[in-house]
Order: sequence, then C-alpha cells, then structure tokens
Amino acid sequence: MKQFLRIFILIAILNCQSGWCQETASVVEDFKPSAVNQLGRDFPQVNSQGRVRASIPAPNANKVRLDIGGVKYDMKKNDAGVWTGESAPQDEGFHYYQLEIDGASVPDPGSLYFYGAGRWGSGIEIPASDKDFYAVKDVPHGLVSENIYFSKLTNSWRRCFVYTPAEYNMDAKKRFPVLYLQHGSFEDETGWCSQGKANLILDNLIADKKAVPMIIVMDNGYAYKNQGNTTESKPVSVFEEVMMNEIIPMIDSKFRTLSDRDHRAIAGLSMGANQTMRIVMNHLDKFAYYGGFSGTSNYPSSDEIDPTTFLDGKFNDGKSVNKQLKVLWLGLGTKEPKPFPGSVGAFRKMLDKQGIKHIFYESPATAHEWLTWRRDLYQYAGLLFK
Amino acid sequence: MKQFLRIFILIAILNCQSGWCQETASVVEDFKPSAVNQLGRDFPQVNSQGRVRASIPAPNANKVRLDIGGVKYDMKKNDAGVWTGESAPQDEGFHYYQLEIDGASVPDPGSLYFYGAGRWGSGIEIPASDKDFYAVKDVPHGLVSENIYFSKLTNSWRRCFVYTPAEYNMDAKKRFPVLYLQHGSFEDETGWCSQGKANLILDNLIADKKAVPMIIVMDNGYAYKNQGNTTESKPVSVFEEVMMNEIIPMIDSKFRTLSDRDHRAIAGLSMGANQTMRIVMNHLDKFAYYGGFSGTSNYPSSDEIDPTTFLDGKFNDGKSVNKQLKVLWLGLGTKEPKPFPGSVGAFRKMLDKQGIKHIFYESPATAHEWLTWRRDLYQYAGLLFK
Repeated sequence: MKQFLRIFILIAILNCQSGWCQETASVVEDFKPSAVNQLGRDFPQVNSQGRVRASIPAPNANKVRLDIGGVKYDMKKNDAGVWTGESAPQDEGFHYYQLEIDGASVPDPGSLYFYGAGRWGSGIEIPASDKDFYAVKDVPHGLVSENIYFSKLTNSWRRCFVYTPAEYNMDAKKRFPVLYLQHGSFEDETGWCSQGKANLILDNLIADKKAVPMIIVMDNGYAYKNQGNTTESKPVSVFEEVMMNEIIPMIDSKFRTLSDRDHRAIAGLSMGANQTMRIVMNHLDKFAYYGGFSGTSNYPSSDEIDPTTFLDGKFNDGKSVNKQLKVLWLGLGTKEPKPFPGSVGAFRKMLDKQGIKHIFYESPATAHEWLTWRRDLYQYAGLLFK
Repeated sequence: MKQFLRIFILIAILNCQSGWCQETASVVEDFKPSAVNQLGRDFPQVNSQGRVRASIPAPNANKVRLDIGGVKYDMKKNDAGVWTGESAPQDEGFHYYQLEIDGASVPDPGSLYFYGAGRWGSGIEIPASDKDFYAVKDVPHGLVSENIYFSKLTNSWRRCFVYTPAEYNMDAKKRFPVLYLQHGSFEDETGWCSQGKANLILDNLIADKKAVPMIIVMDNGYAYKNQGNTTESKPVSVFEEVMMNEIIPMIDSKFRTLSDRDHRAIAGLSMGANQTMRIVMNHLDKFAYYGGFSGTSNYPSSDEIDPTTFLDGKFNDGKSVNKQLKVLWLGLGTKEPKPFPGSVGAFRKMLDKQGIKHIFYESPATAHEWLTWRRDLYQYAGLLFK
C-alpha cells in the first residue's frame, strides 16, 4: 500500500512539473453559472478557485478564445461544435471579459453587458468573501432614476443616474444630503449602479444605520466644450464647469436636496478621483467631503509633490484644508498595478508633510477593479454627513 | 444617342433579372451610423433604403453573416480581415439582429444592446418618417426609475421601471394617474423605456398638452408561482395576482398616485395585450382604460368568438362594458403577420356584435415590431384620464 502511494505521489509530481496539474488536474469541477448571466443561461460559469469557464456553439470556427484579465485562453471544440474553456483563477469581484472567435472580439452571448473598457461588453462576477455588503436583501430599497438633460456648455444631451434612498419616497417633505460619485476612464454614468452596486451598498448601509440616508448623483465624466465650427482639433474638457454650473443646480432644483457645503460630498474612482479632487479643491465653499478611490491628481507621477505648486498650491495651507474638509478619504487595492501605488503614495506623503488629516483604506487582494471601489464606497459613505 | 440609351436600358434589365440589381447596383451609398450605436462606433450603418450594413474584423473567420428579420446575409472579407455586408431594405423602426461568425450567433460589438427575442442582443434603428414624436427634444423630461422589490407570490426579487412626468418632481404635493404598461413575449421590463421610447413619447405628448401628466409602470410579465419543493413540473403563471396584490399596492404606497379606477389605465403589447385584457376584465372595479397593442386574449385563434363563453362571458353584457371602460383601444401594424390580423379581427367582430365601442388604429407599413407599439402608445396615451 505504501509502495502504491509513493508511485501515485511520484506520478502527481511529474505531472505537475509538466504543467498538466496547473492546466487540467487543478481545475476543480464545481463550476456554477455566474451571478451576472443572462436569464436562463448556463454559461459563463465560475468555480471555487475563481476560474471562469466559457462555452459557445461555433461549429465552423477555427479558433475560439476566452479573453479575460489581459490573457487569452484557448477553448476546445466538442463533437457538437460547442467550444468550452477556462481561465486561470481570477481575483474576487467583477471583471470585464470577451470571447475571440477566429479573430473577432465579441461579447459572450451568455453574460449580461456592462459599459467599461470603452465598450458595452461581457462581465463576470467571482463571488467575494465579503459579498454580503452589496447583496440584495430584504431591506427598504431606494430608487435609481435616469435623468436626461441638455447641457449648454457641451451643446449636447447628457444623462445622469440618481439614487434616492427609500425614505425619500416615504417623506415628501424631507431634504437629503448629496454625494456626487464619478466613474473612471473608459466607463460611464451606468457603472456605479450596475457593476458598482452603489444603490445596494447604500440600501444596506442605511438599513444597518451605518450611513445617513443620502442622494447619490452619478454623471458622465466625459464633457467637452462646444467648439462650434472652429478649426481647433483638440477637445477641451469642461467637466468641472458642467458639474458646477449645470449638474449641481439641476439636482438642487429637481430633487429635495440639502444644498449647503456641509451636505454635499464628492468622490470618484481612478480618472474620477483625479477629476473630483480638482473640483473639490477649486470649490471648497461647495463641498465638505472628498473621496479618492484608486486615484489622485498627481497621476501618473510617483514623484515627490511640491505643495506650493501642485494644483495651484491648494494643499499648501494644511490647517485651512483640515478645517474645510471634514473627511479626506483615499482608497487603494493591495494588488493595484503601477503607477497607482506610487502616485497615491506620493500624494499621501505630501499630505503627511503638510499635516493634512486623511483616512487611507486598503482593499485586501483586489486590483484596479470594481470590488476595490465597492469596498471604498462602503467605507467612505459610512463617514459622510455625520 | 437613342440607340445607346436602348442598349443601356437592356443591360440594366438583364442585370436586374440576373439578380445583380437587387444585390449590388441598387444599394445606395448613403449609409450613416445607426442612432443606437455604441459611442464612437461607425458600424452598423443604415442607408436611405433602410438597408443595414454591418462590419466586423474577423481575420481568421471562414464565413460571417448578418442575421436580421429572419434572413442571413453573407458578408465579404477585405484584405485587412474586416467583413462587411448589407441586408435587404428593412421596415422603418427598430429591429433586433445579430452576427453569425463561423456558426456562432453573437451580438454586434458596434451596437447598443436590448432585451428581446429572449436575449440581450443588438438592435438597429431605421429612421422612421414620423420619428419626431419620440425624439429627444428641449422639453421638460420626466424620470425613469428602477425599483426592486421582493415578491412573496413568486418568492423572488423582481424589478419594475417607473416613469414619473417632469411635473412630479416640481410639485411635491400633486398626485398623478397611472398607466400600467406591459411588454411582449421574450421581452422584459426594460423594453418600453429603451427600444419603446415610452418616456420620450410621454415627455413630448405632455409638453404639447396632448396627454395628461401620468405615471407609467413597466413591470415584467413573467411571474411564476412559488411551488416550493413540490414535484409539479409545469410553472404556473401568477402575473395577474402579482399585478393586483403586489405591484399596484407597492406603486400606490411608494408614489403619489391617484388610486381610484378612473385614474388607472392598463395596456400591453402582444403577450402583454393578452395578459392585460384578462386583468382589466377581471378587475373592472380597478381600471377604466384598456389598450391592446398587436394582441387580444383570443390569440392565436382567428375563429369567431362566442361572447357567452370567451373570458368567462366578460364581454357578454356590451352595455355594461361600454359603461365601465372609458377607452377600449386596439392597435395593429398593417404588415403584421399571421395570426395577428385574424385574431384581432375576430375580436373586433365580437365587439361589434356586442355593440361594444372601441377605437382601432392601424400603424402604416409596420409589422409586429416596436415602431407599431411606439405609435400605439402615442395614440393611446393621448386619450387617457380626460
């Protein structure tokens, strides 16, 4: 029996060395349909290791690959013409992905679609150990409303989504504080209440009395000046002007807001963190809270920041910043790639040098992705308007 | 010169007979990107003939086809590996479509995605001659809010979208009448405010004072009884019970509604017309208006209807129906396929026989598709609550 066991172990070791165990033997066969599949679709699936298994009928294809996390995984065809294959283990949380069929990058017809990476495409959810904080629970649920409005500054129709807490519709007299919450590069105003779960995070926080009922406004961070028929070729971003002169006045007139600075917060992720930091520092008379999720305005530099020149010296008077910003909050995933740890690190070093109080939160084992930002929102929203 | 002209015409006729003129020569080269493309995407495109041109890079594919309106059109590959091809002229309005790459049916990465035909997939808009009535205009815009709620009857989380007119947020005391508006088979609660343009149709109607400001509730017509751990295999639809016992009470408690029968209307398209006709006739104490868009409850039969037995004799007392239903409205596209003209025709014949007043509207040159239903909503909403 001992002899048999020794041989078995030897075979296993040899197999692992040849790559077989990583590629095949180590795939645990406990795959389940992803939580963000289309109704009734069996694929894509996720197993307990965080592997993604995709499957698609493509009887006449030469090569089909699963493209996720920057890596393309070959899929295999069965006799019925159905291609199936799986990825290496992925981090917990939400990821964008796609299929590649004979060189065509297309959404997986089995998944729901999300806007990110500059396109509507497939997404998948690797169940997170702490997924309970954004689960749909039997608590009062707020509404998410779609608002379209004409922007004179950009000469275009724009859209924002507005979360109103459950209490908003129960008490027609009460006014609420507002958080302006921005997405990142190549994302849009749909992100925070879709893959970001912002509405569910707030529903749960409010039900647990861990957050004050608040309105959340999620607009689109891309806004370019209407340059008419000029020959200027480079678009000029006017997002700050749109936020201050169009979005905030519209929200304050359309919704029952508390419209003083003490009841207005702002936050954003990545590009949105950079944008909202500029906005808050240029308008400290309008906001009392700032949250920067995986981003700061010195991005992409990791160099030491000179507070006398950075953002026109807005952080130079540390005492004044401390007095005006009730919460200055920064978050980062522990697995974020360059340059984020460097640039956020340099920014924090500058804050410390200036004696500026701030909170720094690290999301365990997540990269520059949505589980980091869901956790950031959960942490940050609990500190607002208190 | 005359001789030259004769030869030219002869060649043209011969070419047409060989199929060349339909397939190639008659394609007018005035294609423009579709109105429902993803941001910045050049394809798919539509020309003045209503042809759809799709294009996708798939360098290693053997065969790529555009699949629209039940027909698959071969596309051709250029030297850069990009496949391009166009369809025959399509009807005005909105159509679902997809691409087929070596046998795989996938969404076109250029289009926005819509839920219909039982899947999230590509859609395209052939500009309609009357498209102005659902255009985004500089008028006050209402909000469309997403509501999630737990249904005890189905033991599941469900969702509805609620349109509130612009005035709803301007006057926190005013109450509004409600239209319950249902989708068709293999569609869901997203359809009416996405491809259906219900919010824009009402924004425009209200701004033109052609409709009374109203709330519109769009829920999901698929609702099955929670059968627990029984061995019954066939799901039992409880949509009527969910509507009457869960959706309406929730809407009346969450929104500022006028909750008497005179201020409650119902309508639906196709399967939704069938469902809502049953609901209205079973609950004439709760509704005063009915709209059936491309459907009736005798579907799919075109046989003569016996009013003493049809829907338990609900249409047998014509005078009573006339007294209770302020508007009984039916619509149908002139190009609808079997069995719709027959079944709606048989239903109308029964109404006439019973002396039941009704309005019948025909949408010109449209089939069982969304332009028919947009027009239906425009016509029907203008008659409500007056």
